[in-house]
Amino acid sequence: MPTRLLEHINKFAKLEKGDFEIIQDYFSIQTFNKKDLILSAGSKCNCNYFVLAGCLHMFFVSENGIQRTVQFAIENWWITDNLAYHKGKTTDFTIQAVENTSLLKIRREDEEKLLGKFPTLERYFRKIYEISYGASLMKMKYVFDYSKEDIYNQFTESFPEFAQRVPQYLIASYLGLTPEYASEIRAKKRS
Amino acid sequence: MPTRLLEHINKFAKLEKGDFEIIQDYFSIQTFNKKDLILSAGSKCNCNYFVLAGCLHMFFVSENGIQRTVQFAIENWWITDNLAYHKGKTTDFTIQAVENTSLLKIRREDEEKLLGKFPTLERYFRKIYEISYGASLMKMKYVFDYSKEDIYNQFTESFPEFAQRVPQYLIASYLGLTPEYASEIRAKKRS
Repeated sequence: MPTRLLEHINKFAKLEKGDFEIIQDYFSIQTFNKKDLILSAGSKCNCNYFVLAGCLHMFFVSENGIQRTVQFAIENWWITDNLAYHKGKTTDFTIQAVENTSLLKIRREDEEKLLGKFPTLERYFRKIYEISYGASLMKMKYVFDYSKEDIYNQFTESFPEFAQRVPQYLIASYLGLTPEYASEIRAKKRS
Repeated sequence: MPTRLLEHINKFAKLEKGDFEIIQDYFSIQTFNKKDLILSAGSKCNCNYFVLAGCLHMFFVSENGIQRTVQFAIENWWITDNLAYHKGKTTDFTIQAVENTSLLKIRREDEEKLLGKFPTLERYFRKIYEISYGASLMKMKYVFDYSKEDIYNQFTESFPEFAQRVPQYLIASYLGLTPEYASEIRAKKRS
């Protein structure tokens, strides 16, 4: 039973008793092994994903062949290519499991029906996206304002559990650093 | 009469007849001259702004004293420091008029009441923030993937009216370029 989602919804908006029984039927549970692909660049982005356990990242492959991570999702996070999902279009991004992961998946047309039926969930998602967008503005601030070393240190100090859990080369990619540069910073911190 | 907001809401969610009469009472109209400040770094961020006419930008001042623009808003755009606004906290950002601007302003506690009364507006803002967050992921892709020259050209070709309207040094700042570098690119394009 995906009570994790119920608890998460109730943190932001209040469901009526019994609603969740209906809501959960709109979702399917899926499990993935580490490195499995959940969504592939070039395919239609018509699902939204809520992580029950594990970790995912979303990346694109740059013109010179380098993978660049643009977002992570651990427990209680939603992840998809939101612009492609909103428009029902093809995505340029790939979503991949960083760890063995189980998630709740909802199809775009089912989410539309679900939100039509439960306005409380509009409130829930409004808050989720408001926070996500606000956080992305803060990330822009870090990316522009801090030196690469400070970005790395700030991130790993702000999210120590996350930094322990996710491979360093992915954190480097997310922060726009080369893996070699991230290694140098770590070596410098240890010395 | 701020019918611009009514039309914008109806693009994303359907209001009942008569609702807008009530809704508009939650807002105040304000006008600003070019260069005026709407929100200042260090102050509490407790308002959200919808542009009726004109243009705003939101920036922070980096440690070495350089202004960095992180978002713009022209007609029909909402702008605030969404994370600080959501949490009711102090902002690190400043919002300033790029042109003479008139806007609708709503206070945080009024927005909360308004959304409680009109679930249709939860739907409206959910879509607005979903798109904004999705667009910020795409911006990350551009920032990481493209050369500085390509970022500039891609942006000015994708949004030609915007590029005509907004001072070049602000576009450069938004894209993470120095004004000098943006001038070089323009000179190269002209030659």
